[in-house]
Amino acid sequence: MAFSAPIQDILFVLDELADLPGVLALPGFEDCSRDLVQAVLEENGKFVEQALAPLNRVGDRVSAQWADGTVTMPAGFAKAFHEFAAAGWQGLQHDTKWGGQGLPKLVGAPASENLNAANLSFSLCPLLTDGVIEALTRVGSPEQQSAFMPPLLQGRWTGTMNLTEPQAGSDLARVAAKAVRQDDGTYRISGQKIFITYGEHDLAENIVHLVLARTPDAPAGVKGISLFIVPKFLTAQDGSLGARNDVWCASIEHKLGIHASPTAVLLYGAGKGEVGEGGAVGYLVGEETHGLEYMFIMMNAARFAVGLQGIAVSERALQQAQAYAAERVQGQALDNPGRSVTIDQHPDVQRMLASMRALTESARALAYCAAGARDKSLRHPDERERAWNQALFDYLVPIVKGFSTENAVEVASLGVQVHGGMGFIEETGAAQHYRDARILPIYEGTTAIQANDLVGRKTLRDGGKVAAELARRMRATLAELQAQADSGGRSGPGTGASAAGATGAVSGSGELALIARRFEAAIQAYEQAVAYVLDTASKEPRAVYLGSVPYLMLSGFVLAGWQMARAALACCRIMPSGAGDAFHARKLASCVFYAAYILPRTQALATAILEGDGAANAALVICKK
Amino acid sequence: MAFSAPIQDILFVLDELADLPGVLALPGFEDCSRDLVQAVLEENGKFVEQALAPLNRVGDRVSAQWADGTVTMPAGFAKAFHEFAAAGWQGLQHDTKWGGQGLPKLVGAPASENLNAANLSFSLCPLLTDGVIEALTRVGSPEQQSAFMPPLLQGRWTGTMNLTEPQAGSDLARVAAKAVRQDDGTYRISGQKIFITYGEHDLAENIVHLVLARTPDAPAGVKGISLFIVPKFLTAQDGSLGARNDVWCASIEHKLGIHASPTAVLLYGAGKGEVGEGGAVGYLVGEETHGLEYMFIMMNAARFAVGLQGIAVSERALQQAQAYAAERVQGQALDNPGRSVTIDQHPDVQRMLASMRALTESARALAYCAAGARDKSLRHPDERERAWNQALFDYLVPIVKGFSTENAVEVASLGVQVHGGMGFIEETGAAQHYRDARILPIYEGTTAIQANDLVGRKTLRDGGKVAAELARRMRATLAELQAQADSGGRSGPGTGASAAGATGAVSGSGELALIARRFEAAIQAYEQAVAYVLDTASKEPRAVYLGSVPYLMLSGFVLAGWQMARAALACCRIMPSGAGDAFHARKLASCVFYAAYILPRTQALATAILEGDGAANAALVICKK
Repeated sequence: MAFSAPIQDILFVLDELADLPGVLALPGFEDCSRDLVQAVLEENGKFVEQALAPLNRVGDRVSAQWADGTVTMPAGFAKAFHEFAAAGWQGLQHDTKWGGQGLPKLVGAPASENLNAANLSFSLCPLLTDGVIEALTRVGSPEQQSAFMPPLLQGRWTGTMNLTEPQAGSDLARVAAKAVRQDDGTYRISGQKIFITYGEHDLAENIVHLVLARTPDAPAGVKGISLFIVPKFLTAQDGSLGARNDVWCASIEHKLGIHASPTAVLLYGAGKGEVGEGGAVGYLVGEETHGLEYMFIMMNAARFAVGLQGIAVSERALQQAQAYAAERVQGQALDNPGRSVTIDQHPDVQRMLASMRALTESARALAYCAAGARDKSLRHPDERERAWNQALFDYLVPIVKGFSTENAVEVASLGVQVHGGMGFIEETGAAQHYRDARILPIYEGTTAIQANDLVGRKTLRDGGKVAAELARRMRATLAELQAQADSGGRSGPGTGASAAGATGAVSGSGELALIARRFEAAIQAYEQAVAYVLDTASKEPRAVYLGSVPYLMLSGFVLAGWQMARAALACCRIMPSGAGDAFHARKLASCVFYAAYILPRTQALATAILEGDGAANAALVICKK
Repeated sequence: MAFSAPIQDILFVLDELADLPGVLALPGFEDCSRDLVQAVLEENGKFVEQALAPLNRVGDRVSAQWADGTVTMPAGFAKAFHEFAAAGWQGLQHDTKWGGQGLPKLVGAPASENLNAANLSFSLCPLLTDGVIEALTRVGSPEQQSAFMPPLLQGRWTGTMNLTEPQAGSDLARVAAKAVRQDDGTYRISGQKIFITYGEHDLAENIVHLVLARTPDAPAGVKGISLFIVPKFLTAQDGSLGARNDVWCASIEHKLGIHASPTAVLLYGAGKGEVGEGGAVGYLVGEETHGLEYMFIMMNAARFAVGLQGIAVSERALQQAQAYAAERVQGQALDNPGRSVTIDQHPDVQRMLASMRALTESARALAYCAAGARDKSLRHPDERERAWNQALFDYLVPIVKGFSTENAVEVASLGVQVHGGMGFIEETGAAQHYRDARILPIYEGTTAIQANDLVGRKTLRDGGKVAAELARRMRATLAELQAQADSGGRSGPGTGASAAGATGAVSGSGELALIARRFEAAIQAYEQAVAYVLDTASKEPRAVYLGSVPYLMLSGFVLAGWQMARAALACCRIMPSGAGDAFHARKLASCVFYAAYILPRTQALATAILEGDGAANAALVICKK
């Protein structure tokens, strides 16, 4: 299946919802015009469509292959990676000082989404490298930066994150890898790391591992962890590759999906290589015992990026399902028995396609708004704006990660269903998205980890301040919707279903009133849930944490629904006469569908959250040993 | 992962919810005692645990293999099938006249569930054979019955259903396979059939295909389809296998899951074999052009059986996740930081495990109630009881099929999530359930096909009569719950969460009140949805059919929730003092959790259904070409 980057929807979100004008007005982006943004994204779209999308199936079929400690990528991946590197895509949102383009995260986000939509397995390599670059940008020493940043940005070297060990998954307190300081200031690292994405491969000449390990005298738990740079090859005096370091790929995993992405078991200090005994040579990042704090920089970037992966897989699955449904003739028209139709004319298939679209577009809108907030948090001249945007971004990261990836599993599953029996046949391609998507709510922190973050650090810590401000802003949008609906929408009275069916447009006050009605109920559900979390957390923490994932999903549905409500208002501005182009008519329809069919989930979630006490007690009995 | 047949829960459902006593009192079951039922199910459990469960992984890994028209099953499958046949399991619920055990469907259902839970791919073979037996029982001629029933019941031969062709999936009007009558009364069948489960294999000596095909002068559409028996080998005069018929397996599919179940492309009339030119030799079942009607007999049996498969995969995924979560140590106790715990002590993992359990148990209860209704519809001495039970069974079949299988996808996905990163590794086994489960909402009629049946033939046709009677009966249960809750449950005032946590039991009126509160809201949601469907179907059919799957799911959640509410009342009867054994305490907790966390979905579904008009209009715009 060909992939087509959704440039029009991306630009709509940037222009109308994520405040691209405001971001481009920030200090440091003087050279970045709206035209440039569009040109970059169109170029990016072309690149991923042509160079990466065609490799998605072969990567799935062939998989990365391990033999004797080396990993061979599927045919075509190395060539594509060299093209990716040569075009400068790795440096898109990184500092010009190190050879990057210095573009806003708000531009980097859609570029990253497209990359992942074209080829999820491929894109994990740049995703991890982005994380290493982000960490070194913030906490690397000047020497570390000048040694590692240029080759990483050029795509000559790639990066990894090494957190997990067999006994230490979500629980980093259990990290046991050792780091022993040497007289020359370097460290020797030993231990085993698992689930290391692109821990070994043949795409680039060197791999820079960021590794969590424990120094001998460090305290127990997460406070005793330090962060180290461990390159696969050391750098020789002249800057060329030097000694082979003592880090080795013992095996790669046989996984449900993302087959082309090698998931490595790495052994540090096996006593091989060219650095002698005692472990792999590592360089301390920042100070000892601050490793987790630094790793969070990388993890926050990666969590946001994995949220984008969710949107990417959703977009890809949607395109595949749409194309199939538009071609597959089966059954007869509901309003004209006897006339054969393609299945995208059947109401149930329309429900599935519209659900896939609404979930994808709404998650995209929310994620890009978060990206814009990140840019403002770093560069806005007003300190209060910076602070609010930082708080907003921090609040949204677990939601973007959890919500977009849980949605991706649903969207990919619907994508299979649209295909009927053909969806279950591997050659069709829909099944790959269903398999690939399943890792997204797990890695870089499961949805539960995101949800605990949202409850603990993002809701309870500030006493619900950010949540209250969001509710206030959502109510302002609601008031605008209600005013527009009362004033007759764009074009006088609502046209009703049959007239709209005939003209092929959703229009008028009926639709805005529908959105307002459902959005209001969703805001109420959100407010109730936030109040419950604030009131109950200290009295019945088990009840609140039992409901943390529902709380995250509710927050996602309402905040993404807010963006869809704003999108509906934007469409009414753009199509004041009621007649519009196909894109905006479809976008408005997507907003209506989201309100009617997706937003009601917030009611069910709120009810469940508020019954948390009884549910938690029941769950405890159920799981009693 | 070992599998353990959930005999205790099965017996609870049979005894307390599905009226096993009433079924055993039916004419024809005089020889079947409660003790016999338990003994049969325990024996069945032992057989599937020992002979079938261990083959589940190897079947997935090795797959059925095609070469030169023959299919070789994974090692161990043939031996297991011979044991299955020798023990008489194929004939469990079939007529003693042909060598069956003649047990109620209410006993056959759990036996079939266990079979499928142990090994889904294996069990598809007996499932299809059951369908052929059912069809020949009702519409086969005496000659056909005596020729085919004994070897089918003995497991010497197996059966298949041949509906689908490349252009005819859900739309059987497009069936193009040809059947030409010969002078000797036989037919010659030619054409291509796809997606034929166990269409070729090496488990049995012969395969009996039931094939839909069209006679030359038949009308177009579904009314021109006839049904034929086409055996792989004809029967010689002495009853031994005769000439090789002209039906050939051209290939098998490379599928997302159920790898050991061969999904065949079958060619009829390729001009090979030992029956000469003109097509495969076939025998007309019943009369010409009544094929679809006969096939529906088989399909209804198969749809119900696929519903059981959904419960089976759910049970298997639940057991796998529970076992992993009980062993995996990660993180610290919420109420005692510093104490390491297994992950099944974390609230979010408890939410997932409890959700998996509640979805599985509720779907089981509903399916068994349907099975009991089927037995009564066939054998009850009172004609009105027969009629009501037939109407009830017909109403429930699409729900059991659609609801249980959609749940299975969710449960299997939660099962992966419970495992975290390990869930994505194929060797763990959780991923297989996620892949296997995905076919269930597709084959034997997609969820949309079930939902259209529920709306059209099961709700609109009788003007909502069955639905109204169900609502009335649910309200009776609700009244009972409310009365019990008001009278203080089993043991005086509710104990509250912390006390219950300490005693390890959910008990008292608080919990019954919770169930009553949520059940009442769910009944209201159901009544609203039914009324909407009845009111709107003729005015806005597109709105109603857009909401057909939500309508099916809503019906499933409330009807299964009804059984959970009845189960809660039964638990209170069984544990009148408030203290009970672990099984009933856990069952009551499962009912509470279902009410608190699953039933609220009915509100969201009802809201979406009632917004159907706006949503349908929007979906039409979204899918406009």
